[in-house]
Order: sequence, then C-alpha cells, then structure tokens
Amino acid sequence: MTRKELIKQIRLKSSFLCVGLDPVLEKIPQPLKDNVNKHVAEKSDHDQLTAIMLLTFNRAIIDATAPYCVAYKPNLAFYEAYGVGGIVAFKMTLRYLREFYPNHFIIADAKRGDIGNTAKMYARSFFEGDYPADALTVAPYMGEDSVTPFLQYPGRWVVLLALTSNKGSQDFQMSPVDQSANSRLFEQVILKSQQWGTEENMMYVVGATQGKLFEDVRRVAPRHFLLVPGVGAQGGSLEEVCKYGMTEDCGLLVNSSRGIIYASNGINFAEEAGKKARELQQQMDSLLSEKL
Amino acid sequence: MTRKELIKQIRLKSSFLCVGLDPVLEKIPQPLKDNVNKHVAEKSDHDQLTAIMLLTFNRAIIDATAPYCVAYKPNLAFYEAYGVGGIVAFKMTLRYLREFYPNHFIIADAKRGDIGNTAKMYARSFFEGDYPADALTVAPYMGEDSVTPFLQYPGRWVVLLALTSNKGSQDFQMSPVDQSANSRLFEQVILKSQQWGTEENMMYVVGATQGKLFEDVRRVAPRHFLLVPGVGAQGGSLEEVCKYGMTEDCGLLVNSSRGIIYASNGINFAEEAGKKARELQQQMDSLLSEKL
Repeated sequence: MTRKELIKQIRLKSSFLCVGLDPVLEKIPQPLKDNVNKHVAEKSDHDQLTAIMLLTFNRAIIDATAPYCVAYKPNLAFYEAYGVGGIVAFKMTLRYLREFYPNHFIIADAKRGDIGNTAKMYARSFFEGDYPADALTVAPYMGEDSVTPFLQYPGRWVVLLALTSNKGSQDFQMSPVDQSANSRLFEQVILKSQQWGTEENMMYVVGATQGKLFEDVRRVAPRHFLLVPGVGAQGGSLEEVCKYGMTEDCGLLVNSSRGIIYASNGINFAEEAGKKARELQQQMDSLLSEKL
Repeated sequence: MTRKELIKQIRLKSSFLCVGLDPVLEKIPQPLKDNVNKHVAEKSDHDQLTAIMLLTFNRAIIDATAPYCVAYKPNLAFYEAYGVGGIVAFKMTLRYLREFYPNHFIIADAKRGDIGNTAKMYARSFFEGDYPADALTVAPYMGEDSVTPFLQYPGRWVVLLALTSNKGSQDFQMSPVDQSANSRLFEQVILKSQQWGTEENMMYVVGATQGKLFEDVRRVAPRHFLLVPGVGAQGGSLEEVCKYGMTEDCGLLVNSSRGIIYASNGINFAEEAGKKARELQQQMDSLLSEKL
C-alpha cells in the first residue's frame, strides 16, 4: 500500500487505529474454545487445533473491528510461541485479511534485524509469497545493511524502532550520542535512516508513553508516519500523542492490542472488542477534525 | 548447559568452533535434492518436502562436523523463509541434535527483542517445550525488560548483540555515548547488561571482523563468553580474534556458516564440510595450546 492510499483510508474512516492481533491461547474466551473443541477437536491433531483456535479468534476480532481501524498488526511472538500451529495461524490470518479486507494495512510486528545476507531471507519471509504483509517492524542496532534489504519491495514498508513504549527505552535509546548537536540515540536512528528510506517506505515506532518527546521526534521526522504502540494497557495518552505528533496528513497509526482484543472474555468478546475499537475511532474522529 | 560444562567440552575437543546451520534451498547440492525427490516427493506435500530437504542437509552436515565443533547455531531467518516446512525443519534439527549430540551447545540465532510481555512469549518459543535451545541471540535496543525474560531459565543463555560483524555495525554501535568515560554504544550495552545477567547466563556477539576492538570488549567483559561470527565468508581472522579476545577459559565460540556448509556442492558435500570444520578445529587446537 502506498502512502497516498493509506492517507485516503484514514480520511475515509476518520480513523488511524491499528488493532494488534496478539492472541494468547490461555486468554481466548472459553465459549470460543468450547465451540472449536466441540466441532473440530476429534478430527484435528494438536497443531491443527492450535491453528484453528487462533484463527477463529482472530477472524472474530477482525470482523468486529474492521469498520473502525485502518491497520492490523500481528506480533510474531504470539504465533511463534505456538510452534507450527501458530505459524499456520499467522499465515491464514494474513490470507483472511488480504481476501476480505484488502484496504487494511498489515504490519508484521517481528522486530527483525540481521546482517545483509540474512536480512534478505527475512525480507523473503514477509514480503514475498502469496500473502505478503505491507510492512515489517525492524530493529536498527545492526545498521544500514540490516535495514535496506527490506526497502527493495515497491509498496512495502519498513517500520523502524526509534523510541519504544517500554521502560527499557530509557536504557540506550535516550543516550546522548552526538555531542555537538545534543542528539540522542533515537534521534540519530531517525536521522541516519533517512539516508536509506523515504517517507514513502519508512515509518518509525514511537511509544505513546513518550508524551512530549513526540515534539523532538517531529523535529527530525516532520512528515514520516509513526507507528504508536502503548495506548491502553501500557498507559499512553491518545490526546498527548495527537497534540505533539499529528501532522497535516495525520502521520500516525496508533495501535491498541490488549485493550481491544481482551475487552471481554465472555461469549460477546468480539462485540465488546468492536465497541472498544469504535470508542477509539470516535476519539480519533474528533482529534482528526481539529487538525485535518 | 552450564558455563562449566561448555568449558569442559571445549577442552575435551580442543575446539571452540560453532557451525552455523543456515540452509538455503537453492544451494543444497543437487545429488541430495535428486535423492530426496526420488524417494519422498510423491508421498509428500510442498511443506513436507521442504522440511525433509532442509533436515536431510542439516543432518549430513551435523554428522560430518560434530567431532570438530562444540556448538551449532541455526539462524531462524533461513527456516522462516520457507514457511511451515522451514519451521518444521528447525524443530526437527533441534530434536536431532538433542537426541544424538546432547553435549553440543545449541544457539537459536533469532536476534529477538521486544517489550517484556512479548519477550516472555519469545522465551517460551525457544526455551520451553521438548527441544529447547541452550541459548538465544537477543538485540539490546529496547533495553532491560526486553532481555530479562530470557534470563529466567536455568542453564539457558542470552547472547546479546554488542559489536556485530557487518558494515552497519559502524552506524550506531560505534557511536560515542558517554562523554565522561569515552565509551561507545557497544561498550554501554556490555556494561549495562551486566546488571541483568552474569557470566553464567549471558554472552556477547562480537564480530570477527572487529580485530583489535576485541581488546576494548575485553576491558568491559574480561571473562564473558563471546560468540564470534564473521570468520570465513565475511573475512574475519581467527588468529586476531584469539590474540585479542581469548581468555584463560577460552571465552570464545567462533562461528562459521557458509565456509563450512557450502564447502562443496557435489555428492561429497558433507565430507568436504567435515574437512573444513576439521581444518578450523586444528587451527583452534594450536591457538588453544598456546593459551590454556
């Protein structure tokens, strides 16, 4: 998906919501589990049952939230943890999104980063094949040749870690690195990576918990899209993110995972997830109308 | 595997060689491909055929090199690129190693790094289940809570990226971050992470291409084991690594992937891989005997 198409979707839906698809088997509502067990357990092996369980959950969440969001972000950790069954569920989730929701932007949240030769293999995993993602999150620590192999695919994006939402973001990302320019590691990552990619194929991860630091991010990346996790369970504020981070093209994809997908663990879990997504979309609608 | 057990294996074998198991379907020798196709292609689907192809190659390489190395390092990129078949091959490779070579140290080279909640899921993937790895490579960019979940498993190790072997290591890892102590990012990573793990459960990745910088690494990590990629195809020198990086316990695991596993693409590929591994082991033997 191009930048222009993404902005069009944001305007159409008055939403810049990204829904994080991070399923945990133990948290999948019991009524869904009972239903899957009743209908397919006997005919399926362990991996198949896992795949069906995760996919059924994801499909219900997607169907309920699709009108209110412009993007989905499955985090690979939550699929890899379930072995082969998990990987099948990941692939089937992408296939489902591509077939039924072709206008939603898909971010594979894998935070990969390896030497050039190996990065090419990762790029193949996520950007080739029948059901490629639109974007992949990438870690910057290994530098240019760990990032550029992902930038060779038209219409596909790198989402580079810059200033993350977690406590550990204080350990290295905030370290001052350039004595003359008073710049910190996350700013150097943003500046240097602009020699590798453009506003059309690169975004940055900036955590919603970083508040006023969005101003500093915008100083070095005035127009790039930012992927913003950390609203909801991690405590970030949507208003602050918009106040300091929104551009005239919106320039934000704000992600919520746990706050939406585990809104309820009852039989109505999908309906409740849809309600939570709608609440966020309505807040986004009014924040957008002030700006756009 | 404990540090003590690892050192015992190094002394027993006079080797600190780690063989990188990074299979690429296109590079698998034609005679092996023909053989697999002849015997199993009709009975197998695409994923099964991929898994058998990769596993057959890995098993031949492992059997030929096991006497000369103390560790194996499959890089996940080379399995993920082949989808479900690749993941099955990864699991079966670990199972094969655990059953037939229980004294070899297994490093899952995945360079993972995510917020605490997600890191726990990754830890589950690699350190739980029937065939866990001994160690996982982890990226430091996201800080403490992205690393510590992997340190909760007795006998399992984090191998943290510090100063990598690639050109991109110059982009951020070498940036000066602490004005008073003249320390660069890779040194800050090594120093700070010693508050999280110990010499018994944490190693660092330092590329063989870094030459004299091993002295600077040893200044901040005098006794930690270092995982050293970059000998062979990437051009690093084994002698230099040992000169500046070896400790009285050896303290090194030197990896070679392409130089060994693609030593030949003929019917004798495994034999040639074994020869290459033996050559490296013999060099290591004489380097060790000078020191230990």
